[in-house]
Amino acid sequence: MKIGITGTGSYLPEIITKNEDFLNHRFLETDGSEFKHSNQVIIEKFQAITGIAERRYAKPNLNTSDLGALAAEQAIADANMDREELDYIIFAHNFGDVEQGKIQGDTLPSLASRVKQQLKIKNPNCVAYDMLFGCPGWIESLIQAKAFISCGMAKKCLVIGGETLSRVIDPHDRDSMIYADGAGACILEGTDSHGEILNHASETHAIDEAYYLYFDKTYDKKGDANTRYIKMNGRKIYEFACTHVPKAMASCLDKSGISIDEVKKVFIHQANEKMDEAIIKRFFKRYGKQAPERVMPMIIKEMGNNSVATVPILFDRVRKGKVKNHNLQKGDIVIFASVGAGMNINAMVYRY
Amino acid sequence: MKIGITGTGSYLPEIITKNEDFLNHRFLETDGSEFKHSNQVIIEKFQAITGIAERRYAKPNLNTSDLGALAAEQAIADANMDREELDYIIFAHNFGDVEQGKIQGDTLPSLASRVKQQLKIKNPNCVAYDMLFGCPGWIESLIQAKAFISCGMAKKCLVIGGETLSRVIDPHDRDSMIYADGAGACILEGTDSHGEILNHASETHAIDEAYYLYFDKTYDKKGDANTRYIKMNGRKIYEFACTHVPKAMASCLDKSGISIDEVKKVFIHQANEKMDEAIIKRFFKRYGKQAPERVMPMIIKEMGNNSVATVPILFDRVRKGKVKNHNLQKGDIVIFASVGAGMNINAMVYRY
Repeated sequence: MKIGITGTGSYLPEIITKNEDFLNHRFLETDGSEFKHSNQVIIEKFQAITGIAERRYAKPNLNTSDLGALAAEQAIADANMDREELDYIIFAHNFGDVEQGKIQGDTLPSLASRVKQQLKIKNPNCVAYDMLFGCPGWIESLIQAKAFISCGMAKKCLVIGGETLSRVIDPHDRDSMIYADGAGACILEGTDSHGEILNHASETHAIDEAYYLYFDKTYDKKGDANTRYIKMNGRKIYEFACTHVPKAMASCLDKSGISIDEVKKVFIHQANEKMDEAIIKRFFKRYGKQAPERVMPMIIKEMGNNSVATVPILFDRVRKGKVKNHNLQKGDIVIFASVGAGMNINAMVYRY
Repeated sequence: MKIGITGTGSYLPEIITKNEDFLNHRFLETDGSEFKHSNQVIIEKFQAITGIAERRYAKPNLNTSDLGALAAEQAIADANMDREELDYIIFAHNFGDVEQGKIQGDTLPSLASRVKQQLKIKNPNCVAYDMLFGCPGWIESLIQAKAFISCGMAKKCLVIGGETLSRVIDPHDRDSMIYADGAGACILEGTDSHGEILNHASETHAIDEAYYLYFDKTYDKKGDANTRYIKMNGRKIYEFACTHVPKAMASCLDKSGISIDEVKKVFIHQANEKMDEAIIKRFFKRYGKQAPERVMPMIIKEMGNNSVATVPILFDRVRKGKVKNHNLQKGDIVIFASVGAGMNINAMVYRY
C-alpha cells in the first residue's frame, strides 16, 4: 500500500507587518551597544540576504493551537474524509500556546488535544500528541505518521505544524524580523490514488550544534534578564545548513532510486532566501547539474520564517495554484526538506 | 522479531520534602479564601487519600534534561550497548527545562537534543525529539519506538520520561503537595531474549476532558496573574480515570490473548493511591476477580507524582529489586498503564 497526502490546509495570519514597520525599532548589537548603521540600512541589508519583505502575525485572540485547528479544518475538508476516522493528530511546534503579552508557553493540555477539542472529534482512539523537533518538526511528524501507518497502528493521520514566533522574539534583535506566525496541515493515509512517500532521511547534530538556536535574554541590558527569546547564531546555521542539508536530500533521493532529472519541485524550509538558494545549488551540483528554474517555490518574501508551518503552507499553496508560476501534476517527484533547532535536518522524497 | 526492553535507568532527585515541610504553607481555596482547617488537618487528609508522605525535588542546578540524561546513562549501561547504535532518543515531558526561579519553560533546543549532547552521541542518524502527551507520555513514547522498530525505521531506541513539576506548582494550592520531580529511561530494541511488547492501547478524550488538567494563575488573589501553574480538577480526573483506565487495560489485555490470571504486576502511573487502588479493583472486577496481593507495586509514598517519570522509575526499581516485596521473573506478564493531561490514557501488555 502507498502512503500519501490526501488533503492539505493552511492558515495565514491576518496581521501583515512590513519591513518598514521596523524603522523605529531600537535594534542593538549582541553586546547591547547601538548599531552604527541606521535602521534603513539594517533593513535593506536584511531584505537583500533573507528575501523577506513582510511577514504575518496572528491576531491577539488567536494562539498557535487555534491556527493549527484552522489549517486542520481545511485539510480535513480537502481530503473529503470523516474526521472521526482519524487515528492520530500530531501537532509539531516548539513553544506551545504563547498568549499575546505573556511570556509562558502553555502546553497543558497538549496543542493536539486542544485541536481535537476544537475539531469536535469524539473518537477516543484518535490519539493526539505534540512533538518538538525545531523547524523540521512538521516533516518529522509526517515521517512518524508514515511509521504508524506502515506498521498497521493507524490508517489516517492529521499532521499539523503551527507556531507564533512573533511572541517569542526580542524586539531589540534584528534577527527578529525573520520570524513569523502560521500553520499548515495535511492528512496522511494509505491510498492508491493520492501520491506516495518514497523515502526519507532525518538527522540530529547535537555535539557542537545543539545551541545554534537557543533561548536567551534580550540584547537590551536594561531588559528583564528572566524573560528569554528565540536567538540564533546565524553564521553557524548558514554554514551548517549548506553543508548538511544537500547531503541529506541526496542520500534520501539516492535511496529512493529516483533520478535527479525527475525532481520537479523542492519544498524547503524558508529561513533565508540566500541560504536556500545555496542549498539548492549545492544539491544539484552533487549530481553535476544546475538547479532548474522554478524548482524551488519561495513564499518567504511575504511570509517570513514561520518555523514548522513553512513547508506545509508552501506545499498547500502550490498544490492549490496559489503560488505564481508553480503547479503540480500527478506523478511529479518532489522533495521536502528542512533544517532547524536541534540542530535537526530532514528530507523526504514524495511522488505527488 | 520480538521488541523488548533491554535496559532501564532512573534518577531520583536528592531533595526530600516531607509532608510536614508544608505545615507553614499558606494554602488557599480556589476562590482565594483561607481554609477552615489547619494545615495539620489538610496534610493528614491529603496523605490519607493520596498515600504521599514525601516527594523528591531536583537540586537547583539540575533541569529536566539533566535528570533525563542521568537516567539515560544508567539505561545504556544496563543494556550493555554502544550508545552510537541508538536510532532514536525520545524525550517525554510536558514543560521543558524550567530553571529554578524562572517561569518560562525552555525547549530550544529540544530536551532530547540536550540529552544527546550530554551523552556525547555523535551519530547524526540518531534522531532526537520531544513528545508531549501528559503523564502517559513515556508509555506513549515506548509505543512510538515500537512502531519505528516494527516498520524497520529503527533498531534501538532510548525512551526517556522526565519532569520537574516542583517548578510549575502554585505554593498556595494544596494539590501542589502531589507533584514531584524525577526521570526514568529505557532502551527498546529487537531482541529474542529480553521480553516483548504484546499489545498496547492509547486514547485521547478531549471533548469535555481536555482541560481537567490545565495551566492557570495562583489561588492567591494578590499573586501575579501572568504566572501560571499546573492546576487540576481532581474530582473529575478521579471519576474519569476509574471509568476509562480499567477499560483500556482490559481491551489491551484481551487483544493480546493473555489471561487475567497470568498478570503478575501492574505498573501504573501514581498520582493518587486511592485512585490507583480503585482502578486495579475495577480492572480485576471486569474479569470477576479480586486484585491479587502485591500485583501493584507502589512508590508514591516516597516519590509523589513525577508525571512521565513515574512508570519508568517504578519499573526500573522493581526490576532491580529496589521495591520491597516485589520482583520480576523472566516471562512474567506485566501491564503498564497511565492516565493524565489531555486527557490521555494508555496501557501496554508486556512479557518480561
